[in-house]
Amino acid sequence: MSILIKGGTVVGPTGASPADVLIDGETIVALFAPGQAPEGPEVIDATGKYVIPGAIDAHTHMQMPFGGTQASDTFDTGTKAAAIGGTTTIIDFAIQKYGEVVQDGLAAWHGKTADQCHIDYGFHMILGGVDDDSLKAMDQLVATEGITSFKLFMAYPGVFYSDDGQILRAMQKARDNGAMIMMHAENGPAIDVLVKQALERGETDPKFHGLTRPQELEAEATSRAIWLASVAADCPLYIVHLSASKALEQVRNARDLGRNVFAETCPQYLYLTLEDQLGAPGFEGAKWVCSTPLRSGEESHRADLWQGLRTNDLSVVSTDHCPFCMKDQKEMGIGDFSKIPNGIGSVEHRVDLLYQGVVDGKLSLARWVETIATTPARMFGMYPKKGIIAPGSDADIVLYDPNGRTRISVETHHMNMDYSAWEGWEIDGKVDTVLSRGEVISRNGEYTGRPGRGKYVPRGLSDYLL
Amino acid sequence: MSILIKGGTVVGPTGASPADVLIDGETIVALFAPGQAPEGPEVIDATGKYVIPGAIDAHTHMQMPFGGTQASDTFDTGTKAAAIGGTTTIIDFAIQKYGEVVQDGLAAWHGKTADQCHIDYGFHMILGGVDDDSLKAMDQLVATEGITSFKLFMAYPGVFYSDDGQILRAMQKARDNGAMIMMHAENGPAIDVLVKQALERGETDPKFHGLTRPQELEAEATSRAIWLASVAADCPLYIVHLSASKALEQVRNARDLGRNVFAETCPQYLYLTLEDQLGAPGFEGAKWVCSTPLRSGEESHRADLWQGLRTNDLSVVSTDHCPFCMKDQKEMGIGDFSKIPNGIGSVEHRVDLLYQGVVDGKLSLARWVETIATTPARMFGMYPKKGIIAPGSDADIVLYDPNGRTRISVETHHMNMDYSAWEGWEIDGKVDTVLSRGEVISRNGEYTGRPGRGKYVPRGLSDYLL
Amino acid sequence: MSILIKGGTVVGPTGASPADVLIDGETIVALFAPGQAPEGPEVIDATGKYVIPGAIDAHTHMQMPFGGTQASDTFDTGTKAAAIGGTTTIIDFAIQKYGEVVQDGLAAWHGKTADQCHIDYGFHMILGGVDDDSLKAMDQLVATEGITSFKLFMAYPGVFYSDDGQILRAMQKARDNGAMIMMHAENGPAIDVLVKQALERGETDPKFHGLTRPQELEAEATSRAIWLASVAADCPLYIVHLSASKALEQVRNARDLGRNVFAETCPQYLYLTLEDQLGAPGFEGAKWVCSTPLRSGEESHRADLWQGLRTNDLSVVSTDHCPFCMKDQKEMGIGDFSKIPNGIGSVEHRVDLLYQGVVDGKLSLARWVETIATTPARMFGMYPKKGIIAPGSDADIVLYDPNGRTRISVETHHMNMDYSAWEGWEIDGKVDTVLSRGEVISRNGEYTGRPGRGKYVPRGLSDYLL
Amino acid sequence: MSILIKGGTVVGPTGASPADVLIDGETIVALFAPGQAPEGPEVIDATGKYVIPGAIDAHTHMQMPFGGTQASDTFDTGTKAAAIGGTTTIIDFAIQKYGEVVQDGLAAWHGKTADQCHIDYGFHMILGGVDDDSLKAMDQLVATEGITSFKLFMAYPGVFYSDDGQILRAMQKARDNGAMIMMHAENGPAIDVLVKQALERGETDPKFHGLTRPQELEAEATSRAIWLASVAADCPLYIVHLSASKALEQVRNARDLGRNVFAETCPQYLYLTLEDQLGAPGFEGAKWVCSTPLRSGEESHRADLWQGLRTNDLSVVSTDHCPFCMKDQKEMGIGDFSKIPNGIGSVEHRVDLLYQGVVDGKLSLARWVETIATTPARMFGMYPKKGIIAPGSDADIVLYDPNGRTRISVETHHMNMDYSAWEGWEIDGKVDTVLSRGEVISRNGEYTGRPGRGKYVPRGLSDYLL
Repeated sequence: MSILIKGGTVVGPTGASPADVLIDGETIVALFAPGQAPEGPEVIDATGKYVIPGAIDAHTHMQMPFGGTQASDTFDTGTKAAAIGGTTTIIDFAIQKYGEVVQDGLAAWHGKTADQCHIDYGFHMILGGVDDDSLKAMDQLVATEGITSFKLFMAYPGVFYSDDGQILRAMQKARDNGAMIMMHAENGPAIDVLVKQALERGETDPKFHGLTRPQELEAEATSRAIWLASVAADCPLYIVHLSASKALEQVRNARDLGRNVFAETCPQYLYLTLEDQLGAPGFEGAKWVCSTPLRSGEESHRADLWQGLRTNDLSVVSTDHCPFCMKDQKEMGIGDFSKIPNGIGSVEHRVDLLYQGVVDGKLSLARWVETIATTPARMFGMYPKKGIIAPGSDADIVLYDPNGRTRISVETHHMNMDYSAWEGWEIDGKVDTVLSRGEVISRNGEYTGRPGRGKYVPRGLSDYLL
Repeated sequence: MSILIKGGTVVGPTGASPADVLIDGETIVALFAPGQAPEGPEVIDATGKYVIPGAIDAHTHMQMPFGGTQASDTFDTGTKAAAIGGTTTIIDFAIQKYGEVVQDGLAAWHGKTADQCHIDYGFHMILGGVDDDSLKAMDQLVATEGITSFKLFMAYPGVFYSDDGQILRAMQKARDNGAMIMMHAENGPAIDVLVKQALERGETDPKFHGLTRPQELEAEATSRAIWLASVAADCPLYIVHLSASKALEQVRNARDLGRNVFAETCPQYLYLTLEDQLGAPGFEGAKWVCSTPLRSGEESHRADLWQGLRTNDLSVVSTDHCPFCMKDQKEMGIGDFSKIPNGIGSVEHRVDLLYQGVVDGKLSLARWVETIATTPARMFGMYPKKGIIAPGSDADIVLYDPNGRTRISVETHHMNMDYSAWEGWEIDGKVDTVLSRGEVISRNGEYTGRPGRGKYVPRGLSDYLL
Repeated sequence: MSILIKGGTVVGPTGASPADVLIDGETIVALFAPGQAPEGPEVIDATGKYVIPGAIDAHTHMQMPFGGTQASDTFDTGTKAAAIGGTTTIIDFAIQKYGEVVQDGLAAWHGKTADQCHIDYGFHMILGGVDDDSLKAMDQLVATEGITSFKLFMAYPGVFYSDDGQILRAMQKARDNGAMIMMHAENGPAIDVLVKQALERGETDPKFHGLTRPQELEAEATSRAIWLASVAADCPLYIVHLSASKALEQVRNARDLGRNVFAETCPQYLYLTLEDQLGAPGFEGAKWVCSTPLRSGEESHRADLWQGLRTNDLSVVSTDHCPFCMKDQKEMGIGDFSKIPNGIGSVEHRVDLLYQGVVDGKLSLARWVETIATTPARMFGMYPKKGIIAPGSDADIVLYDPNGRTRISVETHHMNMDYSAWEGWEIDGKVDTVLSRGEVISRNGEYTGRPGRGKYVPRGLSDYLL
Repeated sequence: MSILIKGGTVVGPTGASPADVLIDGETIVALFAPGQAPEGPEVIDATGKYVIPGAIDAHTHMQMPFGGTQASDTFDTGTKAAAIGGTTTIIDFAIQKYGEVVQDGLAAWHGKTADQCHIDYGFHMILGGVDDDSLKAMDQLVATEGITSFKLFMAYPGVFYSDDGQILRAMQKARDNGAMIMMHAENGPAIDVLVKQALERGETDPKFHGLTRPQELEAEATSRAIWLASVAADCPLYIVHLSASKALEQVRNARDLGRNVFAETCPQYLYLTLEDQLGAPGFEGAKWVCSTPLRSGEESHRADLWQGLRTNDLSVVSTDHCPFCMKDQKEMGIGDFSKIPNGIGSVEHRVDLLYQGVVDGKLSLARWVETIATTPARMFGMYPKKGIIAPGSDADIVLYDPNGRTRISVETHHMNMDYSAWEGWEIDGKVDTVLSRGEVISRNGEYTGRPGRGKYVPRGLSDYLL
């Protein structure tokens, strides 16, 4: 079964050119200059469209357990929404809790995803307890399970928190086996002091979630992770959900030295603010409670993050998709912001939200594709299977219509959330058609995919290490 | 007439994958996954070879007039040598001397190149005299002549030197018409003082050429050019032949701010030193007299430049190819280093010398292709016609053999030089086959090209400006 | 004839303590703990007052020729005003114009000052023409004339401008003889382009004086001077009238490296702005036309300069006193800002204006004394004769009343200006009594000095060089 | 009883001048220009000598309990040695251990010092356990006990270690009451991992003490302390025993921003190295086991620290005097470097060792006095009682002979140590005479002081805070 995507402009990480894409089964088998493709295959007309590699969201938390509840998107609902939004691969987080066997955690996540996903997926592994056993497990996961990235937390003492000795040990192991250490970089013990003090003062509204997590404590932890990685002989380090100017400065300084330090940001940090969203009247700000938090719009964070994307000090845009409904979930934190489940849901909108950056002159077209697709694939060992339109690659392809228009609303989105963090936002572009491994799963708003068609993607080491 | 390059590994700026490349006439018409290409075309077996875009040397000076003589390679000999070395496009410099009409200078260079070049070529324009007329000419060259980059000199008072007022005016013009300002960044007036003092002290040997051009005076001029470009509303600026750590630091600081500042380095700065080459006994050091000069091997310049290539603070590697023979040419400076014609010839060896960086673990394979081909094409408005293997692009292609071996010597090189700056160097790789616009012009050491087959490439604006 | 200053708080560069100061003739002969001084001498009651060393203004231009006119304060009027304001020593600038003999310029200034000055004075030497003769003269002035600092201009092409080769030569000479190079750091050739363009656009108001001298061109020149000084083996360098954040950043970077780089700022840059003063309606802004210009109040310049004073990246506060009356003088620039004589007059107010910084919590009391008295003395080779209250030092002493109040106005000032740059400003403190070499010359607003009592102070090398 | 120190050169923090010093009882009552002092008092001839304020050692640990033993100098032996070496005030550390009441710890140290000290002394308070009670105690100690500085440890988990939440709370308290937080800045949890790994590899020699405490873990902790202090509204922070270039860089960056961040270094870091001393053959390196450790002489640490003293990024030189004998004490760590008691003894030699820096051209004479006397006094609230020669100040005075010569040896030193860390070092200068509160206690090598004559000095807040 062959498909020819014809008449479009293929956009890759270094530029665009008109070309036709021939798919056979699940794979791209050829690219042709206009007019050179053979007749015969089914034709998808891409005239006036950008033909881009299916986007990769390298940071999602579907149905993640959190404080007695769990993220409201299942792997079924979440990956369907992702697909409709142009994302054809996610990397979610399998979790080892403190005291658990790492491999058991991984097995649990393979169980949760079996027959559920609409698109391909991989796993990072969260290490909730670094000890001799889990360090040994890291080697095995890298060698035989296709798990090559491990997430640690400098926040959340008593939950996922690792102390600096544990972090150093995990980094030493990663240095040896080539894995990437992903870091939630916030100084948890200091934040806990500020949270306790705020609550004692009666500061319970959602905005205090942001005010008790000042950027200095993100910058500090980012800096510390970078120092520890240097002690571990320049262990590869990837800072997740970087939100703030001063944290970015730490990453930039390390990258200036040629260090193996990388970072992602998320759409919420590029567009939303502590004042306008998190500080919304009453309890509404709870919709935007996530960690790291939204930052002040009176400071230069957003402009700095866009600039960081241009300079490649920020390499990737992921969503940190971790949705909770207002009802019953976010509401747990009425009267105590510290009990609001942390997370925002954007897996469906990342491709659009970043395209708006192209329209606004903040990113080039090529850099858009690079940050949402090519670099995530290279960063996490899936290139050239994913992240590029090239012969031999998986036929994960999105036709994007620059003349389309997208309006975001809880009324129309497909994520399992009872609100939208982006309610009413309009994008000057539109996901037109989505193919996953050669199958058209979404076209003109009609969704034809199904749970279980997505496959697990075992991953290799990062391409960015010499 | 069709050719299929079969069985190779196609390497692009973001990675490598096995693919077959179909050429029809001068153009790449299709890429195929292995086993997917049609039968019929002539096959070039690329098994075990890297298939890369033909390299682009963005900085050459063929037969350039200099101090009563001229660079020893003509466009005929120089472009042939380039071709054999895997370079399929050069951008040379047309010259407006002080007092001349810019367009006359350009016409002169079109005259020199007509029927001479073996490969495609473009021109940057040197402005030897910035005034109302030449500023007006800039607009015309950008609009109708395919000349989108203009070179100024902060060195060489009385020859090409522009003062800061002239530089600012040219930058303002470039800001308006989108052109790139290329800068020879050395503080000429200060250098002239040091040269005069050295000669008065009887310091006449070639090494004093280097010692009288300290890196501080390159760093200063680089910094100044960046400041002036900021006054000109962030006019695009490209620093040529950056040689020194402190100059790199200036570029890095500007790029950290997201400024439109770019830089190239050259193979000589990555490998050679003031002590080992420029300081060779007697007059031999004259072989390596070029400006900017070779830097001290006791400082970290070379390591810093390699790092700058990895961090993209250095975007391009060009040669600044400007060869002079020892006999009659370099010898003009016996007893007075300031009379030695400035220049080194490496146009034939750049692809190999940088590949050695891949072998040595200093660059990734993808970054090799990016710095010698893709980025020069994007930087100077020739992408995707040049710089990438993609359907619709010119069929400028090099098969590179990682199992080959190259030994550099004046005995075997094709440049018109009576010595080699790289005599005896051995490379762990080899240019196997070179195609220029679909024609095999070099294969297994047999050269089949001819002068006049190369075409002028009118260029657009840089891709790097949002 | 003995005087005892009794009951006050002596403030020095490291702190304050109660002490009585005994003066005999022109000299301080003893300091006593309270109650320890002998009876007998005339007593000046300093109860409730700060007793500080007479302030030193290291940058004045009395009766300086400028564009066909001259600064409106003579050495007589200017030094009298200085004295009343608590300044007991000035260092003015003798001028060698291009083509003149340096020693002739110095002799001319000795002529202008003879029998004119109310307080002690020294000279810096402006070198308007760097050549073999003037370089030789530098040695002589250092060795025998007590002139140990030489000012060069990177601005004003065709007037005082030195090119980078000349600057380098003068710096090399200063490195050898220990003199300080003082630098007017603005990129004159680039500024001239902007000025010409502005005038061509009909932008003739005073504020365009500021807009055509952007801070980038001060920062650039500052940076360049620092680079050139490093080529001259770390020649001592002192940046005059630093006005802008980015220029300060250059100085700070050099000082972080332990370089012999120093800078002064002036009260106008600490308090006044481009918008509020230079941009005053009509031609009124001409009152504040000076170079470097006032900077935008919407940027952080003023806060950064105060911080620089605290961190010692700015070592000295001088006035750059160079007054011109509105009538006949400033008015020369109606319709063409470039013809407005450059200069502001503040020599009478510096001690007060900086004391306001103490009141406002921007400087400590000790740092106030250090920046206006001790450091200028140490910087320019007059310590401990000047700049400190210590046995053996000249009895240049100011009693400052922290409970007094000073209102500045053209109605009450003593400078020969027909306006005040500080009209209506009020200071929470007051100069009470001023002694110059043991003589009370101003007390409770009654002035008892006279022209000619001030003596020339030959100076040694800077104390800040190891 | 009056004493006149006559004929010397009084050196203060901004320079030197000839003056005579009159002492009455315990206090300086007058300074005189030469020839101005009254006849009558006992005269000490200071001809040819520098007359400097008695030095202040702001960091000592006399008889400190450590791992079952205690530092070998008692307050008796240690302060006598200090006195002989020209130090007339120490600030030692009273200790609150985890679980103890802060005031009890202080009382214990008052008990240890009663009737023991030869010179004046103050206390910093070590907080071994930050909790509600100890935070409350901080207020009381500041308000009524003359204790205005509190030391915390980022190293030594399980002993003195505070976590980041505790540190933040103590900093918030210090911000409110004006106290200084002193920080032992090393990342203890990470170091413990490295130590354990080294011992497991059989790396037990003293040099591994240094190798398991890499400078990155000092720099990290220094950076973290600075970030936490910024969260605590710029709480005053003083980094103790800074040893390494990268740690200095953190302090410098903060100070460039005008932050209330200060640091001291110690003589051992200015002169000694990991290779030459800590890496001495066999167990001899144990003599130099201290934390932070000696750094590699192959890196630029020592030059950078000297430069930091010049630029005032390092404000103070203390000793961190904490001596242990080789016999029975250091020997506890044979076969396990982690059991070697940490500490070096230099309290007797600091004045001399820093004077050698003056001789070597690394510090000015004024800066020598500032770093060993004036700044410690200002930093820790004892100025002008201590740290300056001024009327009303304590008559703590040292006559220093620049023509003398000092040879350091265990044979001749007065500290209670069975080795010298500086065995055989020779100094081009000599402590000649020492007065403590008006009493000559050491003269020409004859010691005439006695235990118990030293008094406790209650201290005020730091002078460096605006």
